[in-house]
Amino acid sequence: MPKVGVCLSGCGYMDGAEIQEAVLTILALDRARAEMIFMAPDIPQTTVVDHQTGEKTDETRNVLTESARITRGNVMDIAMVVPDDLDALIFPGGFGAALNLSDFGIKGADSTVNPDVERLIHGMVKASKPIGVLCIAPAMAARAISEITEGAKLTIGNDKGTAEQMEKLGIIHTDCAVQSFVTDEKYKIVSTPAYMLGTRISDVAKGVNRLVEKVLSLIP
Amino acid sequence: MPKVGVCLSGCGYMDGAEIQEAVLTILALDRARAEMIFMAPDIPQTTVVDHQTGEKTDETRNVLTESARITRGNVMDIAMVVPDDLDALIFPGGFGAALNLSDFGIKGADSTVNPDVERLIHGMVKASKPIGVLCIAPAMAARAISEITEGAKLTIGNDKGTAEQMEKLGIIHTDCAVQSFVTDEKYKIVSTPAYMLGTRISDVAKGVNRLVEKVLSLIP
Repeated sequence: MPKVGVCLSGCGYMDGAEIQEAVLTILALDRARAEMIFMAPDIPQTTVVDHQTGEKTDETRNVLTESARITRGNVMDIAMVVPDDLDALIFPGGFGAALNLSDFGIKGADSTVNPDVERLIHGMVKASKPIGVLCIAPAMAARAISEITEGAKLTIGNDKGTAEQMEKLGIIHTDCAVQSFVTDEKYKIVSTPAYMLGTRISDVAKGVNRLVEKVLSLIP
Repeated sequence: MPKVGVCLSGCGYMDGAEIQEAVLTILALDRARAEMIFMAPDIPQTTVVDHQTGEKTDETRNVLTESARITRGNVMDIAMVVPDDLDALIFPGGFGAALNLSDFGIKGADSTVNPDVERLIHGMVKASKPIGVLCIAPAMAARAISEITEGAKLTIGNDKGTAEQMEKLGIIHTDCAVQSFVTDEKYKIVSTPAYMLGTRISDVAKGVNRLVEKVLSLIP
Protein backbone atom coordinates (compact mmCIF):
# COMPACT_ATOMS: atom_id res chain seq x y z
CA MET A 1 0.00 0.00 0.00
CA PRO A 2 1.71 3.22 -1.12
CA LYS A 3 2.03 6.01 1.44
CA VAL A 4 0.96 9.26 -0.15
CA GLY A 5 1.31 12.62 1.51
CA VAL A 6 -1.45 15.15 0.84
CA CYS A 7 -0.35 18.68 1.72
CA LEU A 8 -3.18 21.14 2.30
CA SER A 9 -3.08 24.92 2.70
CA GLY A 10 -6.31 25.71 4.56
CA CYS A 11 -9.97 25.19 3.68
CA GLY A 12 -11.48 27.25 0.86
CA TYR A 13 -10.01 28.23 -2.48
CA MET A 14 -9.77 31.98 -1.88
CA ASP A 15 -7.53 31.77 1.20
CA GLY A 16 -6.64 28.06 1.54
CA ALA A 17 -6.88 24.70 -0.20
CA GLU A 18 -9.47 24.27 -2.96
CA ILE A 19 -11.94 22.01 -1.15
CA GLN A 20 -13.31 20.17 -4.17
CA GLU A 21 -9.81 19.43 -5.53
CA ALA A 22 -8.72 18.18 -2.11
CA VAL A 23 -11.72 15.86 -1.75
CA LEU A 24 -11.33 14.57 -5.32
CA THR A 25 -7.67 13.80 -4.55
CA ILE A 26 -8.60 11.96 -1.35
CA LEU A 27 -11.32 10.01 -3.19
CA ALA A 28 -8.97 8.95 -5.98
CA LEU A 29 -6.27 7.91 -3.50
CA ASP A 30 -8.74 5.94 -1.36
CA ARG A 31 -10.12 4.15 -4.42
CA ALA A 32 -6.51 3.20 -5.26
CA ARG A 33 -6.15 1.86 -1.70
CA ALA A 34 -3.33 4.28 -0.91
CA GLU A 35 -2.53 5.18 2.69
CA MET A 36 -2.86 8.95 3.08
CA ILE A 37 -0.71 11.13 5.30
CA PHE A 38 -2.33 14.55 5.60
CA MET A 39 -0.12 17.51 6.38
CA ALA A 40 -0.06 21.31 6.43
CA PRO A 41 2.17 24.02 7.83
CA ASP A 42 1.18 25.03 11.38
CA ILE A 43 1.12 28.76 10.62
CA PRO A 44 -1.47 31.55 10.46
CA GLN A 45 -3.24 32.01 7.12
CA THR A 46 -1.99 35.02 5.14
CA THR A 47 -5.58 36.20 4.81
CA VAL A 48 -9.16 35.12 5.51
CA VAL A 49 -11.68 35.74 2.72
CA ASP A 50 -15.48 35.65 2.85
CA HIS A 51 -16.16 33.13 0.06
CA GLN A 52 -19.68 34.43 -0.54
CA THR A 53 -18.67 38.07 -1.14
CA GLY A 54 -15.01 37.60 -2.10
CA GLU A 55 -14.00 40.25 0.43
CA LYS A 56 -11.19 40.00 2.98
CA THR A 57 -12.22 39.80 6.62
CA ASP A 58 -10.29 40.75 9.77
CA GLU A 59 -10.35 37.16 11.08
CA THR A 60 -7.26 35.08 11.75
CA ARG A 61 -7.22 31.33 11.10
CA ASN A 62 -4.53 28.64 11.24
CA VAL A 63 -3.61 26.75 8.05
CA LEU A 64 -3.31 23.33 9.72
CA THR A 65 -6.46 23.71 11.85
CA GLU A 66 -8.60 24.72 8.87
CA SER A 67 -7.11 21.95 6.69
CA ALA A 68 -8.39 19.44 9.28
CA ARG A 69 -11.97 20.36 8.30
CA ILE A 70 -11.43 18.71 4.92
CA THR A 71 -9.66 15.60 6.22
CA ARG A 72 -11.84 15.04 9.34
CA GLY A 73 -8.85 15.69 11.60
CA ASN A 74 -5.46 13.97 11.68
CA VAL A 75 -3.33 16.56 9.92
CA MET A 76 0.42 16.43 10.63
CA ASP A 77 2.60 19.50 10.94
CA ILE A 78 4.62 19.36 7.70
CA ALA A 79 7.70 20.39 9.72
CA MET A 80 7.63 16.84 11.19
CA VAL A 81 7.42 15.01 7.83
CA VAL A 82 10.49 13.66 6.02
CA PRO A 83 10.72 12.06 2.55
CA ASP A 84 11.35 8.65 4.15
CA ASP A 85 7.75 8.77 5.46
CA LEU A 86 6.30 8.99 1.94
CA ASP A 87 6.23 7.21 -1.41
CA ALA A 88 4.63 10.21 -3.14
CA LEU A 89 3.35 13.71 -2.30
CA ILE A 90 0.37 15.60 -3.73
CA PHE A 91 -0.58 19.28 -3.39
CA PRO A 92 -4.21 20.16 -4.17
CA GLY A 93 -4.62 23.76 -5.35
CA GLY A 94 -6.46 26.81 -4.11
CA PHE A 95 -4.87 30.20 -3.50
CA GLY A 96 -3.57 28.83 -0.20
CA ALA A 97 -0.74 27.27 -2.25
CA ALA A 98 0.20 30.76 -3.46
CA LEU A 99 -0.57 32.59 -0.18
CA ASN A 100 0.22 30.17 2.67
CA LEU A 101 2.60 27.53 1.24
CA SER A 102 4.41 30.27 -0.66
CA ASP A 103 3.87 33.92 -1.58
CA PHE A 104 3.82 33.26 -5.33
CA GLY A 105 0.37 34.86 -5.52
CA ILE A 106 1.89 38.16 -4.41
CA LYS A 107 5.46 38.06 -5.70
CA GLY A 108 5.41 35.65 -8.67
CA ALA A 109 8.92 34.59 -9.75
CA ASP A 110 10.40 36.55 -6.82
CA SER A 111 8.38 34.60 -4.25
CA THR A 112 9.67 32.34 -1.51
CA VAL A 113 8.28 28.98 -0.41
CA ASN A 114 7.56 28.00 3.20
CA PRO A 115 10.87 26.43 4.32
CA ASP A 116 9.27 23.16 5.53
CA VAL A 117 7.32 22.79 2.30
CA GLU A 118 10.45 23.53 0.24
CA ARG A 119 12.57 21.10 2.29
CA LEU A 120 10.08 18.29 1.72
CA ILE A 121 9.73 19.01 -2.02
CA HIS A 122 13.53 19.06 -2.41
CA GLY A 123 13.80 15.80 -0.50
CA MET A 124 11.19 14.10 -2.67
CA VAL A 125 12.82 15.27 -5.93
CA LYS A 126 16.27 14.19 -4.73
CA ALA A 127 14.90 10.79 -3.70
CA SER A 128 13.22 10.44 -7.10
CA LYS A 129 9.77 10.13 -5.46
CA PRO A 130 6.80 11.48 -7.45
CA ILE A 131 5.02 14.74 -6.71
CA GLY A 132 1.55 15.76 -7.97
CA VAL A 133 0.52 19.42 -8.14
CA LEU A 134 -2.95 20.74 -8.96
CA CYS A 135 -4.32 24.11 -10.06
CA ILE A 136 -2.01 26.95 -8.85
CA ALA A 137 0.20 24.58 -6.79
CA PRO A 138 2.53 24.02 -9.80
CA ALA A 139 3.51 27.72 -9.52
CA MET A 140 4.52 27.20 -5.89
CA ALA A 141 6.39 24.03 -6.92
CA ALA A 142 8.13 25.92 -9.75
CA ARG A 143 9.60 28.31 -7.20
CA ALA A 144 10.54 25.45 -4.85
CA ILE A 145 12.37 23.38 -7.47
CA SER A 146 13.93 26.18 -9.51
CA GLU A 147 17.35 25.80 -7.88
CA ILE A 148 17.56 22.01 -8.10
CA THR A 149 16.08 21.31 -11.55
CA GLU A 150 16.60 22.41 -15.15
CA GLY A 151 13.77 22.72 -17.66
CA ALA A 152 11.15 20.89 -15.60
CA LYS A 153 7.83 20.61 -17.47
CA LEU A 154 4.75 21.87 -15.61
CA THR A 155 1.28 23.20 -16.40
CA ILE A 156 -1.19 25.52 -14.71
CA GLY A 157 -3.57 25.36 -17.67
CA ASN A 158 -3.28 28.31 -20.06
CA ASP A 159 -2.97 31.43 -17.88
CA LYS A 160 -0.29 33.48 -19.66
CA GLY A 161 0.70 35.72 -16.74
CA THR A 162 1.26 32.82 -14.35
CA ALA A 163 3.02 30.74 -17.02
CA GLU A 164 5.43 33.63 -17.72
CA GLN A 165 6.35 33.90 -14.04
CA MET A 166 7.02 30.15 -13.99
CA GLU A 167 9.19 30.37 -17.11
CA LYS A 168 11.30 33.05 -15.41
CA LEU A 169 12.11 30.29 -12.92
CA GLY A 170 13.42 28.01 -15.66
CA ILE A 171 10.24 25.96 -15.99
CA ILE A 172 8.98 24.81 -19.39
CA HIS A 173 5.27 25.59 -19.25
CA THR A 174 2.96 23.51 -21.43
CA ASP A 175 -0.70 24.45 -21.98
CA CYS A 176 -3.02 21.65 -20.88
CA ALA A 177 -6.76 20.92 -20.85
CA VAL A 178 -8.59 20.52 -17.55
CA GLN A 179 -9.26 16.81 -18.11
CA SER A 180 -5.59 16.10 -18.80
CA PHE A 181 -2.18 16.43 -17.10
CA VAL A 182 1.48 17.08 -17.85
CA THR A 183 4.28 14.81 -16.64
CA ASP A 184 7.91 15.65 -16.16
CA GLU A 185 9.33 12.15 -16.37
CA LYS A 186 12.84 13.19 -15.31
CA TYR A 187 11.86 14.86 -12.03
CA LYS A 188 8.65 12.81 -11.61
CA ILE A 189 6.38 15.83 -11.24
CA VAL A 190 2.81 15.58 -12.52
CA SER A 191 0.56 18.64 -12.86
CA THR A 192 -3.07 19.27 -13.87
CA PRO A 193 -4.90 22.62 -14.27
CA ALA A 194 -8.00 21.71 -12.17
CA TYR A 195 -9.89 24.92 -11.24
CA MET A 196 -7.23 27.17 -12.82
CA LEU A 197 -9.15 26.26 -15.97
CA GLY A 198 -12.13 24.07 -15.07
CA THR A 199 -15.68 25.25 -14.61
CA ARG A 200 -17.32 21.91 -13.75
CA ILE A 201 -16.32 19.56 -10.96
CA SER A 202 -16.83 16.55 -13.25
CA ASP A 203 -14.14 17.90 -15.62
CA VAL A 204 -11.79 18.69 -12.73
CA ALA A 205 -12.35 15.15 -11.42
CA LYS A 206 -11.14 13.65 -14.70
CA GLY A 207 -7.85 15.56 -14.50
CA VAL A 208 -7.38 14.76 -10.81
CA ASN A 209 -8.12 11.06 -11.31
CA ARG A 210 -5.58 10.86 -14.12
CA LEU A 211 -2.98 12.79 -12.13
CA VAL A 212 -3.37 10.47 -9.12
CA GLU A 213 -3.12 7.39 -11.34
CA LYS A 214 0.04 8.78 -12.98
CA VAL A 215 1.65 9.77 -9.67
CA LEU A 216 1.05 6.27 -8.25
CA SER A 217 2.51 4.70 -11.42
CA LEU A 218 5.75 6.66 -10.90
CA ILE A 219 6.40 5.08 -7.49
CA PRO A 220 9.26 2.61 -8.03
CA MET B 1 -32.01 19.61 -16.81
CA PRO B 2 -33.37 19.01 -13.29
CA LYS B 3 -32.93 21.82 -10.77
CA VAL B 4 -31.64 20.37 -7.55
CA GLY B 5 -31.26 22.34 -4.33
CA VAL B 6 -28.28 21.48 -2.14
CA CYS B 7 -28.73 22.79 1.39
CA LEU B 8 -25.51 23.17 3.39
CA SER B 9 -25.01 23.89 7.08
CA GLY B 10 -21.48 25.32 7.24
CA CYS B 11 -18.08 23.88 6.33
CA GLY B 12 -16.68 21.04 8.46
CA TYR B 13 -18.42 18.03 9.97
CA MET B 14 -18.03 18.97 13.63
CA ASP B 15 -19.85 22.30 13.39
CA GLY B 16 -21.21 22.47 9.83
CA ALA B 17 -21.70 20.45 6.67
CA GLU B 18 -19.60 17.32 6.16
CA ILE B 19 -17.27 18.57 3.43
CA GLN B 20 -16.59 15.23 1.74
CA GLU B 21 -20.30 14.34 1.61
CA ALA B 22 -21.12 17.77 0.19
CA VAL B 23 -18.46 17.49 -2.54
CA LEU B 24 -19.51 13.93 -3.41
CA THR B 25 -23.11 15.15 -3.74
CA ILE B 26 -22.03 18.02 -6.01
CA LEU B 27 -19.89 15.65 -8.11
CA ALA B 28 -22.73 13.14 -8.55
CA LEU B 29 -25.19 15.91 -9.48
CA ASP B 30 -22.77 17.49 -11.96
CA ARG B 31 -22.08 14.13 -13.59
CA ALA B 32 -25.87 13.72 -13.96
CA ARG B 33 -25.94 17.18 -15.61
CA ALA B 34 -28.24 18.56 -12.92
CA GLU B 35 -28.41 22.31 -12.30
CA MET B 36 -27.50 22.97 -8.67
CA ILE B 37 -28.98 25.66 -6.47
CA PHE B 38 -26.86 25.99 -3.34
CA MET B 39 -28.49 27.33 -0.21
CA ALA B 40 -28.01 27.70 3.55
CA PRO B 41 -29.60 29.64 6.36
CA ASP B 42 -28.01 33.08 6.85
CA ILE B 43 -27.51 32.61 10.62
CA PRO B 44 -24.59 32.31 13.04
CA GLN B 45 -23.23 28.79 13.60
CA THR B 46 -24.28 27.28 16.93
CA THR B 47 -20.64 26.52 17.65
CA VAL B 48 -17.19 26.60 16.04
CA VAL B 49 -15.00 23.53 16.62
CA ASP B 50 -11.27 23.11 16.00
CA HIS B 51 -11.34 20.05 13.71
CA GLN B 52 -7.79 19.04 14.58
CA THR B 53 -8.32 18.91 18.36
CA GLY B 54 -12.11 18.45 18.50
CA GLU B 55 -12.37 21.32 20.98
CA LYS B 56 -14.82 24.21 20.85
CA THR B 57 -13.36 27.64 20.14
CA ASP B 58 -14.70 31.10 21.00
CA GLU B 59 -14.99 32.09 17.34
CA THR B 60 -18.23 33.03 15.60
CA ARG B 61 -18.90 32.09 12.00
CA ASN B 62 -21.91 32.40 9.69
CA VAL B 63 -23.52 29.23 8.26
CA LEU B 64 -24.08 30.64 4.75
CA THR B 65 -20.67 32.32 4.50
CA GLU B 66 -18.82 29.14 5.51
CA SER B 67 -20.97 26.98 3.20
CA ALA B 68 -19.74 29.15 0.30
CA ARG B 69 -16.22 27.74 0.84
CA ILE B 70 -17.45 24.35 -0.37
CA THR B 71 -19.46 25.64 -3.34
CA ARG B 72 -16.99 28.34 -4.49
CA GLY B 73 -19.54 31.07 -3.69
CA ASN B 74 -23.08 31.51 -4.96
CA VAL B 75 -25.03 30.27 -1.92
CA MET B 76 -28.63 31.50 -1.63
CA ASP B 77 -30.27 32.39 1.65
CA ILE B 78 -32.70 29.48 2.10
CA ALA B 79 -35.30 32.01 3.32
CA MET B 80 -35.57 33.16 -0.31
CA VAL B 81 -36.07 29.66 -1.82
CA VAL B 82 -39.52 28.22 -2.57
CA PRO B 83 -40.43 24.71 -3.76
CA ASP B 84 -41.32 26.07 -7.22
CA ASP B 85 -37.60 26.86 -7.69
CA LEU B 86 -36.63 23.19 -7.30
CA ASP B 87 -37.26 19.73 -8.73
CA ALA B 88 -35.49 18.04 -5.80
CA LEU B 89 -33.62 18.97 -2.62
CA ILE B 90 -30.60 17.27 -1.00
CA PHE B 91 -29.10 17.78 2.45
CA PRO B 92 -25.52 16.55 2.95
CA GLY B 93 -24.74 15.63 6.55
CA GLY B 94 -22.35 16.83 9.21
CA PHE B 95 -23.31 17.95 12.69
CA GLY B 96 -24.34 21.27 11.15
CA ALA B 97 -27.62 19.55 10.21
CA ALA B 98 -28.20 18.79 13.91
CA LEU B 99 -26.74 22.05 15.27
CA ASN B 100 -27.48 24.77 12.68
CA LEU B 101 -30.39 23.50 10.54
CA SER B 102 -32.02 22.10 13.71
CA ASP B 103 -31.07 21.44 17.32
CA PHE B 104 -31.61 17.66 17.04
CA GLY B 105 -28.03 17.13 18.18
CA ILE B 106 -28.86 18.70 21.51
CA LYS B 107 -32.58 17.94 22.03
CA GLY B 108 -33.26 14.81 19.96
CA ALA B 109 -36.99 14.19 19.48
CA ASP B 110 -37.77 17.44 21.32
CA SER B 111 -35.74 19.52 18.86
CA THR B 112 -36.97 22.21 16.51
CA VAL B 113 -35.96 22.83 12.91
CA ASN B 114 -34.91 26.20 11.48
CA PRO B 115 -38.24 27.66 10.24
CA ASP B 116 -36.99 28.35 6.70
CA VAL B 117 -35.58 24.83 6.40
CA GLU B 118 -38.81 23.33 7.74
CA ARG B 119 -40.97 25.46 5.43
CA LEU B 120 -39.00 24.29 2.37
CA ILE B 121 -39.05 20.63 3.44
CA HIS B 122 -42.82 20.80 4.04
CA GLY B 123 -43.31 22.45 0.65
CA MET B 124 -41.28 19.79 -1.14
CA VAL B 125 -43.15 16.92 0.56
CA LYS B 126 -46.52 18.49 -0.17
CA ALA B 127 -45.53 19.04 -3.81
CA SER B 128 -44.37 15.41 -4.03
CA LYS B 129 -40.85 16.50 -4.96
CA PRO B 130 -38.01 14.22 -3.83
CA ILE B 131 -35.68 14.94 -0.92
CA GLY B 132 -32.31 13.28 -0.26
CA VAL B 133 -30.78 13.26 3.23
CA LEU B 134 -27.29 12.06 4.17
CA CYS B 135 -25.61 11.07 7.42
CA ILE B 136 -27.31 12.83 10.39
CA ALA B 137 -29.54 14.99 8.14
CA PRO B 138 -32.30 12.32 8.21
CA ALA B 139 -32.69 13.04 11.95
CA MET B 140 -33.27 16.72 11.20
CA ALA B 141 -35.70 15.71 8.44
CA ALA B 142 -37.50 13.35 10.84
CA ARG B 143 -38.25 16.27 13.12
CA ALA B 144 -39.28 18.48 10.18
CA ILE B 145 -41.73 15.99 8.64
CA SER B 146 -43.12 14.43 11.82
CA GLU B 147 -46.30 16.51 11.73
CA ILE B 148 -47.09 16.00 8.05
CA THR B 149 -46.20 12.32 7.52
CA GLU B 150 -47.01 8.95 9.04
CA GLY B 151 -44.54 6.10 9.23
CA ALA B 152 -41.97 7.58 6.87
CA LYS B 153 -38.99 5.25 6.36
CA LEU B 154 -35.54 6.73 6.98
CA THR B 155 -32.05 5.56 7.92
CA ILE B 156 -29.07 7.07 9.70
CA GLY B 157 -27.17 3.77 9.54
CA ASN B 158 -27.33 1.71 12.73
CA ASP B 159 -26.87 4.17 15.61
CA LYS B 160 -29.43 2.98 18.18
CA GLY B 161 -29.68 6.18 20.21
CA THR B 162 -30.36 8.38 17.20
CA ALA B 163 -32.74 5.82 15.66
CA GLU B 164 -34.77 5.73 18.90
CA GLN B 165 -35.13 9.52 18.92
CA MET B 166 -36.34 9.36 15.30
CA GLU B 167 -38.83 6.62 16.12
CA LYS B 168 -40.29 8.83 18.87
CA LEU B 169 -41.17 11.16 16.00
CA GLY B 170 -43.14 8.45 14.20
CA ILE B 171 -40.37 7.50 11.78
CA ILE B 172 -39.75 3.87 10.85
CA HIS B 173 -35.98 3.52 11.10
CA THR B 174 -34.30 0.87 8.96
CA ASP B 175 -30.68 -0.14 9.47
CA CYS B 176 -28.67 0.37 6.29
CA ALA B 177 -25.10 -0.21 5.06
CA VAL B 178 -22.93 2.75 4.08
CA GLN B 179 -22.89 1.78 0.39
CA SER B 180 -26.67 1.58 0.25
CA PHE B 181 -29.74 3.77 0.85
CA VAL B 182 -33.34 3.63 2.07
CA THR B 183 -36.25 5.05 0.06
CA ASP B 184 -39.62 6.13 1.33
CA GLU B 185 -41.56 5.85 -1.90
CA LYS B 186 -44.71 7.49 -0.51
CA TYR B 187 -43.08 10.71 0.64
CA LYS B 188 -40.17 10.48 -1.85
CA ILE B 189 -37.46 10.76 0.79
CA VAL B 190 -34.15 8.95 0.20
CA SER B 191 -31.55 8.54 2.95
CA THR B 192 -28.04 7.08 3.20
CA PRO B 193 -25.80 6.69 6.29
CA ALA B 194 -22.64 8.24 4.77
CA TYR B 195 -20.19 9.15 7.58
CA MET B 196 -22.67 8.15 10.33
CA LEU B 197 -21.34 4.71 9.49
CA GLY B 198 -18.63 4.96 6.86
CA THR B 199 -14.91 5.02 7.50
CA ARG B 200 -13.68 5.36 3.92
CA ILE B 201 -14.63 8.05 1.43
CA SER B 202 -14.88 5.47 -1.36
CA ASP B 203 -17.64 3.63 0.57
CA VAL B 204 -19.44 6.88 1.35
CA ALA B 205 -19.23 7.80 -2.35
CA LYS B 206 -21.06 4.60 -3.32
CA GLY B 207 -23.98 5.45 -1.03
CA VAL B 208 -24.07 9.09 -2.12
CA ASN B 209 -23.96 8.20 -5.83
CA ARG B 210 -26.84 5.77 -5.39
CA LEU B 211 -28.85 8.27 -3.35
CA VAL B 212 -28.41 10.98 -6.00
CA GLU B 213 -29.39 8.59 -8.78
CA LYS B 214 -32.50 7.55 -6.82
CA VAL B 215 -33.50 11.13 -5.96
CA LEU B 216 -33.23 12.15 -9.64
CA SER B 217 -35.30 9.12 -10.67
CA LEU B 218 -38.13 10.25 -8.37
CA ILE B 219 -38.53 13.58 -10.19
CA PRO B 220 -41.77 13.24 -12.19
